[in-house]
Amino acid sequence: MNKIYNPERSQWKTVLKRPTQSVSEVEDIVSAVFSEIKAGGDTVVSNYTKKFDGVDLQDALVSSKEIEDSIKLISNDLKLAIQQAKNNIEKFHKAQKTEKITVETADGVLCWQEKRPIQKVGLYIPGGTAPLFSTILMLAIPANIAGCKEIVLCTPPNKEGKVHPAILYAANLCGVTKIFKVGGIQAIASMTFGTETIPPVYKIFGPGNQFVTVAKQIATKYGISIDMPAGPSELLVMADDTANAAFVASDLLSQAEHGVDSQVILVSTSKTLIDAVEVEVAKQIQDLPRKEIAFKAIANSKLIFVKDQQTAVDIINEYGPEHYILCVQDEEFFLEQTYNAGSVFIGNYTPESAGDYASGTNHTLPTNGFAKQYSGVNLDSFMKSMTFQKISKKGIREIGRTIELMAEAEGLQAHKNAVTLRLDSLK
Amino acid sequence: MNKIYNPERSQWKTVLKRPTQSVSEVEDIVSAVFSEIKAGGDTVVSNYTKKFDGVDLQDALVSSKEIEDSIKLISNDLKLAIQQAKNNIEKFHKAQKTEKITVETADGVLCWQEKRPIQKVGLYIPGGTAPLFSTILMLAIPANIAGCKEIVLCTPPNKEGKVHPAILYAANLCGVTKIFKVGGIQAIASMTFGTETIPPVYKIFGPGNQFVTVAKQIATKYGISIDMPAGPSELLVMADDTANAAFVASDLLSQAEHGVDSQVILVSTSKTLIDAVEVEVAKQIQDLPRKEIAFKAIANSKLIFVKDQQTAVDIINEYGPEHYILCVQDEEFFLEQTYNAGSVFIGNYTPESAGDYASGTNHTLPTNGFAKQYSGVNLDSFMKSMTFQKISKKGIREIGRTIELMAEAEGLQAHKNAVTLRLDSLK
Repeated sequence: MNKIYNPERSQWKTVLKRPTQSVSEVEDIVSAVFSEIKAGGDTVVSNYTKKFDGVDLQDALVSSKEIEDSIKLISNDLKLAIQQAKNNIEKFHKAQKTEKITVETADGVLCWQEKRPIQKVGLYIPGGTAPLFSTILMLAIPANIAGCKEIVLCTPPNKEGKVHPAILYAANLCGVTKIFKVGGIQAIASMTFGTETIPPVYKIFGPGNQFVTVAKQIATKYGISIDMPAGPSELLVMADDTANAAFVASDLLSQAEHGVDSQVILVSTSKTLIDAVEVEVAKQIQDLPRKEIAFKAIANSKLIFVKDQQTAVDIINEYGPEHYILCVQDEEFFLEQTYNAGSVFIGNYTPESAGDYASGTNHTLPTNGFAKQYSGVNLDSFMKSMTFQKISKKGIREIGRTIELMAEAEGLQAHKNAVTLRLDSLK
Repeated sequence: MNKIYNPERSQWKTVLKRPTQSVSEVEDIVSAVFSEIKAGGDTVVSNYTKKFDGVDLQDALVSSKEIEDSIKLISNDLKLAIQQAKNNIEKFHKAQKTEKITVETADGVLCWQEKRPIQKVGLYIPGGTAPLFSTILMLAIPANIAGCKEIVLCTPPNKEGKVHPAILYAANLCGVTKIFKVGGIQAIASMTFGTETIPPVYKIFGPGNQFVTVAKQIATKYGISIDMPAGPSELLVMADDTANAAFVASDLLSQAEHGVDSQVILVSTSKTLIDAVEVEVAKQIQDLPRKEIAFKAIANSKLIFVKDQQTAVDIINEYGPEHYILCVQDEEFFLEQTYNAGSVFIGNYTPESAGDYASGTNHTLPTNGFAKQYSGVNLDSFMKSMTFQKISKKGIREIGRTIELMAEAEGLQAHKNAVTLRLDSLK
């Protein structure tokens, strides 16, 4: 672990630098697959599934029998756990519903704003050894609360042509309308253009490897929107002497096990705590099944000592962490002063993994400093706001002259005429 | 004008097709300018200003003297008009403020969501013959209500090195913090990387030509977010026999004068109305100063007759218009059934130009069918939502087991450990 004491402000950019990836080569590969799938549909998708997932599938659509079977394969304990998580996530996301906002801005000029669901959304869930069923809860639950009509899920099959039962179970429980066994670039391209079996969607959500990430970027060129640009997951812990070094170490490690490019940063006003955390990390890391990964991520991690709270919060705002744990005496100061963070975990009994699974907040969050300008996924991510206005005869008399003057000053005579004609008809 | 009667559903995509532009050549030019400005800063920017705007500027920053002068150059009538528009826009966008949302999802598990302002935003306003000062109101007013700290505006200078006084007046009135005389790709690149004089921002808003549009897309590759992808402006009018043909024609023309690639569509259940609108358009177009442009846009416009309201609303949802005028007997039906539209103008006395300038709604709206998944600019466009959670000892006992079970099922042992350690400490 790299200990850095009182870094100069001019060095912050360097100290906080994230590992960057070059995407230009990947882009060419992704663009080629997109073109092929746009032209060839299901046949091309099926060829890529054979090539990358090593299985020849007759039908990419998951059958209702497969879903029923999955229900039997999940233990009752896990079912109850998923149910508790679902309840909490539902409560928190239902509370995010906003009412119609109506304002009579001038006499007879009625304006309102309403949010309406995005009709068709697509979710991507990666395959691999660990089935990320928790991400299904985080995406499908708010999609359902929003009222999205079609909720399509794509996830790669294993070599036997199967999908992990926990994924099927969670998708079915959370109201996904169709599940397809398609992974990688071919999944994102299919949801972008639609194929004979996979419907096109308007917005695509979910994590993935470098190819999926670039594929989502390419999808935006075709008018599809995405949840947010992705980057490696990251955690910043701000802790002082009131923090528990063992707890902090366990949080840093829970982030570090995600991947070798995971970012782990501890900022502290206490050198004692920094040293204690270092010792605890060395101790706890030994027993982790994914310690190979964790070792590499921890080797790149940073323990930053700063002289006071103001410097600490400035450095945190400069970084804009995805996950931000706050174990300090003066919580209020940090809560008020932190502008840039995805999700904040406060106090010694709030591990990051609580938000990953079950507290109720969403775990799809802006990485790579994007917390400076992007929201994490929330109910509004599945809706769009529309505005409405209804102007009475009185209303157009009230604001008509203003429109005429402004349109004329902008050199747009027809804009003016549309008002003049109406005003004249009322004379 | 092209009249189309009862188009088959299978033909809708073709009938509703928007003019598409190829951006690949423009992309290379834009990328090159981005690289140059990233490396060379102000000197490069100044060279491009000389090349494209034909003026050699000592300082790109607009001085306070220039702003003061602009105040004298605007007529009192226009000042009052701008003030009324500002009041209405302020009222409507202030009403969009959302409160902190707090939910105790389980005993001792407190979650909340708060929106915080994006600290640094950049606005781009194009130059040319018509000064689009109304767009400054639409962007700077909500930026200020949101509480953005830095609001930077870039706009190209004319050959005398000046900016139109209406732009300076509106920018100053609406609380823009700094105005720079920089246009085109160089403006977007400067706000992306920052130069010696122009500060970098986190999010860029505003309209522009094809080069600016592509530059905003390229900016997203460098982690900057943008208001929305742009396309030519468009209007769809849904009208039946209760509509006023002259008013409808004036609205179609106000859209058509924007540019030769503007989209104008009338959907109607009345052949009589379609014919009457056609006659009125031919009459009104003659007197427009921008009739050359309007003629070309109108030539591509479509008058679509459909047999019933349900077909009408289906075709409207398929198109997803930016501006949507509704002059029908049964307003409720269309208001309830339309999912995809940017801003809706209801009734005979609600011209589109009302929303362009003064009703209070925002005129920065999703074009190109993006209303299917994007919101128009609103207060939230200048903020991002952050989530928070604070779990007590009781709370972690309440949801700890759920987290452990789910983390284990996902193969993430360190995530589980972060909870186990805390639960053990409470035994």
